[in-house]
Amino acid sequence: MLSGNQVKHINSLKQKKFREIHRQFLAEGSKLVKEILESQYKVLNVYAIADWLKQNEDIVLSNQVSFVEVSLGEMERITALSSPSSALAVAEIPEMTGPPALINDLVLVLDDIRDPGNLGTIIRIADWFGIKTIICSENTVDLYNPKVIQATMGSAFRINIFYTDLKKFLSSLSPKVKIYGTFTQGESIYSTPLEDQGIIIIGNESSGISKEISLNVTDRISIPAYIKDNRHIDHAESLNASIATAIICSEFRRRMG
Amino acid sequence: MLSGNQVKHINSLKQKKFREIHRQFLAEGSKLVKEILESQYKVLNVYAIADWLKQNEDIVLSNQVSFVEVSLGEMERITALSSPSSALAVAEIPEMTGPPALINDLVLVLDDIRDPGNLGTIIRIADWFGIKTIICSENTVDLYNPKVIQATMGSAFRINIFYTDLKKFLSSLSPKVKIYGTFTQGESIYSTPLEDQGIIIIGNESSGISKEISLNVTDRISIPAYIKDNRHIDHAESLNASIATAIICSEFRRRMG
Repeated sequence: MLSGNQVKHINSLKQKKFREIHRQFLAEGSKLVKEILESQYKVLNVYAIADWLKQNEDIVLSNQVSFVEVSLGEMERITALSSPSSALAVAEIPEMTGPPALINDLVLVLDDIRDPGNLGTIIRIADWFGIKTIICSENTVDLYNPKVIQATMGSAFRINIFYTDLKKFLSSLSPKVKIYGTFTQGESIYSTPLEDQGIIIIGNESSGISKEISLNVTDRISIPAYIKDNRHIDHAESLNASIATAIICSEFRRRMG
Repeated sequence: MLSGNQVKHINSLKQKKFREIHRQFLAEGSKLVKEILESQYKVLNVYAIADWLKQNEDIVLSNQVSFVEVSLGEMERITALSSPSSALAVAEIPEMTGPPALINDLVLVLDDIRDPGNLGTIIRIADWFGIKTIICSENTVDLYNPKVIQATMGSAFRINIFYTDLKKFLSSLSPKVKIYGTFTQGESIYSTPLEDQGIIIIGNESSGISKEISLNVTDRISIPAYIKDNRHIDHAESLNASIATAIICSEFRRRMG
């Protein structure tokens, strides 16, 4: 049974403003709730229907979390999805630390990714390709937006994600760190040298990498469109930001065998 | 000025049933309208606000299409998007022919892609990588769904897309045609031989390639997750269907140089 205040509190967490005030966020759906319970995140409450609690008795018994049984009608009042799910967790937003000073692996840097679906998909791609760190510009969509959490399919709980002033961060790095960025006129990603550590910058969905940030790029790369026999033919003008991220990460990892 | 019947007709085209009855579909947004006017599709009407018509006078004068000036309020009544755009075209759905009998290039085959955004993104990826033909199972989401057309960003007008009984189609092909399909236990796409012609099957978002269709696959491939030092660590369980398509197409095209 949910009180009016609980409903109000949960719904408030769909807005960034209240997530920041309460330092809490939502993870919804059976799979996501199970993943967050297994992660290092601190879960405060799980709201779930009777069936879910019954089916997942082992999880309920082994976790020191407050499980609250709710009706499907109550789930409808708190869901952040288009249709209510069987379980919803409220978890703590961990303290934000600064991004790592030392780059000894591949790191993704996001320059103003605005679409929640894109950010979620990019996090899932990073998780697949063993990229452990993502650094976002301050204008990148909030990681704890329910649509982002949803689209990551649990990958958000396994990756270190930071928000920071990108210009300052990139300028603070050793000049030895490679900074890759995608540009129409860049070197083909299939033939240009790629190192196994460094930064890969992904630009905004419509404007790409910002002018200011592009000054920090050391290696301009591109994903060439395939044009048979070098004939000029019309083709898609660009690739979606998350699609480009997937192709770039795949090629870096292919080289590393 | 729009009549009540026009509003009703345009709105009916948001449903597959009425698209099939009228053999018409919608393409919305300034860029898409311009692209469809330049394509081989037969455009019947373009509804646009005064500003758009003024800015695109050359297009209006050079096309034998009925351009109808509408107010922004009227656009709101017919838009298929979350906010009204400046122009919307009604075009004819061309006669469907059968899929090609001869496979002399790379062809994508979609086994029940259900999400409109995924289908649109896959079409855009095909267009980028010079794949000219996509063959969809009969249960794949309708190409002329406004959300699909929107997500293709115009690429739908440059690719041949067929809907057919996949099992029959695949079984009718010469046994010499390579049929690639992605499976968890497949050979790594980075090291397995890939030919420059053949079929690449993309499976359904949640269940992958169906059992029946998997019997036709000649080459089982996979996109390996990157695991450092071969240590077992948790990572994303899977990649989104359009993300997998992007990585596979990119690798095929890389080999073809």
